Amino acid sequence: MTIALAIHGGCGTLPKAEMTDGEWAQARADLASSLRAGWAILTKGGGAVDAVEAAVRVMEDSPHFNAGHGAAFNADGDHELDASIMDGATLAAGALCGVRRIRNPVSAAKVLMLRGDPLLLAGAAGDIFAEHEGLDMVENDYFSTERRRKNLSSMKIRELVGTAGQASEAEKHGTVGAVACDAKGHLAAATSTGGYTNKPVGRVGDSPIIGAGTYARDGRCAVSGTGKGEYFIRYCVGHEIASLIAYKGLSLKEATDTVLGELGAHKIGAGLVAIGPDGGIVAPYNTDGMYRGWVTPDGLVHVATHGDVEVAGQA
Amino acid sequence: MTIALAIHGGCGTLPKAEMTDGEWAQARADLASSLRAGWAILTKGGGAVDAVEAAVRVMEDSPHFNAGHGAAFNADGDHELDASIMDGATLAAGALCGVRRIRNPVSAAKVLMLRGDPLLLAGAAGDIFAEHEGLDMVENDYFSTERRRKNLSSMKIRELVGTAGQASEAEKHGTVGAVACDAKGHLAAATSTGGYTNKPVGRVGDSPIIGAGTYARDGRCAVSGTGKGEYFIRYCVGHEIASLIAYKGLSLKEATDTVLGELGAHKIGAGLVAIGPDGGIVAPYNTDGMYRGWVTPDGLVHVATHGDVEVAGQA
Repeated sequence: MTIALAIHGGCGTLPKAEMTDGEWAQARADLASSLRAGWAILTKGGGAVDAVEAAVRVMEDSPHFNAGHGAAFNADGDHELDASIMDGATLAAGALCGVRRIRNPVSAAKVLMLRGDPLLLAGAAGDIFAEHEGLDMVENDYFSTERRRKNLSSMKIRELVGTAGQASEAEKHGTVGAVACDAKGHLAAATSTGGYTNKPVGRVGDSPIIGAGTYARDGRCAVSGTGKGEYFIRYCVGHEIASLIAYKGLSLKEATDTVLGELGAHKIGAGLVAIGPDGGIVAPYNTDGMYRGWVTPDGLVHVATHGDVEVAGQA
Repeated sequence: MTIALAIHGGCGTLPKAEMTDGEWAQARADLASSLRAGWAILTKGGGAVDAVEAAVRVMEDSPHFNAGHGAAFNADGDHELDASIMDGATLAAGALCGVRRIRNPVSAAKVLMLRGDPLLLAGAAGDIFAEHEGLDMVENDYFSTERRRKNLSSMKIRELVGTAGQASEAEKHGTVGAVACDAKGHLAAATSTGGYTNKPVGRVGDSPIIGAGTYARDGRCAVSGTGKGEYFIRYCVGHEIASLIAYKGLSLKEATDTVLGELGAHKIGAGLVAIGPDGGIVAPYNTDGMYRGWVTPDGLVHVATHGDVEVAGQA
């Protein structure tokens, strides 16, 4: 089998004209680092689950993406994080929602998956679990960045003047995720997010929902989504793509285009990365841009924020 | 269109020999009341969403089912409740997990759905939302019953002596749910649960997960599940059944048998009620029994706990 890896850093990118050269360069560098972290595992014969975890951790640690350090603030000015991971070989999965003290929620999701039961933990129980498992714990303000604080102020003002509905994806959303196929042909997917800026306390989106924002099943596909999570849940986006492939015979591209088209018809900003049963990669989005990247079989790292794709050297 | 309604009260029924005549009569009476509450709405031209809510509320209020009053205790001896509802006409949905003070979580899920956003609220945020919306609030011990307290003691002992894995479905699980088709041909599904006895604090099962324990889409099916929730999430049971119907052309019975067969192959105790695109009803389970019931088009109420189905008069 050919190994494969793709990532996204959310479809909440700024319009290209509003990004400085420095911001673009830094976002690109962190996407490349994420890909290299995952690819290094795959080329050594490591598993898809470990590869997606490693790739997502890099983006969680980067301040440029809405997950981990750099996560959006909720309406109370705190961070509540959601993450999940799924092993396409076994359909095992782990997920947490509303955690506040885990530095890398995706790793906690993996440990939970490996423990086997339960699959999904909510709130403080997720933090206590991770602490008990010896994962890196942080104070909630570790996740805070100046950019996200400005987003919160902006959204609070929009709320007051009644223009919250006009906020851009960049002001609101963002998620990170990865999909991989390992040398044994096993698929995996992982997603991690801070939700959206000024989200109600306790709101859970699609990122920790298996079948919605994250899904993987060998022979079908691996999917990680980004966008308006409520619609990813309603449309069971990850599992819908898998079903269109398995039961309707669509190609990966046809299946993802179909689902994104359905979301787009409702004016739902959305994007995703996915790997098909043959290791093929797609990274579609219907927003202005999407932080994304993948490694081609020759080992070249490709990263992009808007229409142009740049090659960032060897993995 | 022909109206249709089916309910389940969980696949955690006791072996028939262990149930007294009184228990069987009471469970049967409450199932019949649940069906009558939902059917009354449908026969007056009411919507499927309101019908499933009404049916589930009756089972939440009954001490005989693991939802609302009568809910299982978690490992701390408290009750954390999950519920969801989905409108097959619009794919709108509402869900709560880990709530502790809402008398009828299914009604809070409906109000959340009608508000439109967010779709899923976790923990205390769900309670605060419901209180703000003026729903009936209770103390957590309102949900406690002697039978569930004995289940908790029994599970704590099993945990100590290492036989927790041998506990019966009746000791552990239980969920209630309803599916309906209204006179306009719209489908809806709702599910509510206390989870399982001695569940870890913060554990979320499939009941509040759209696409897993609850799913409805007009022209496909409405599904509410009961059983080992982690596997319902992994297999996206509700959405999988819908996909097998929509994309593989299976009948409702073929689709539900396929999915229950896949769960059964993993020795996962499971059951569900579902309505197909033509209003047909199925209520399969692979456990010893499942509290269940439906109304036939002639208005006759049917209820069952094990193999025998009894007619309980006109709806």
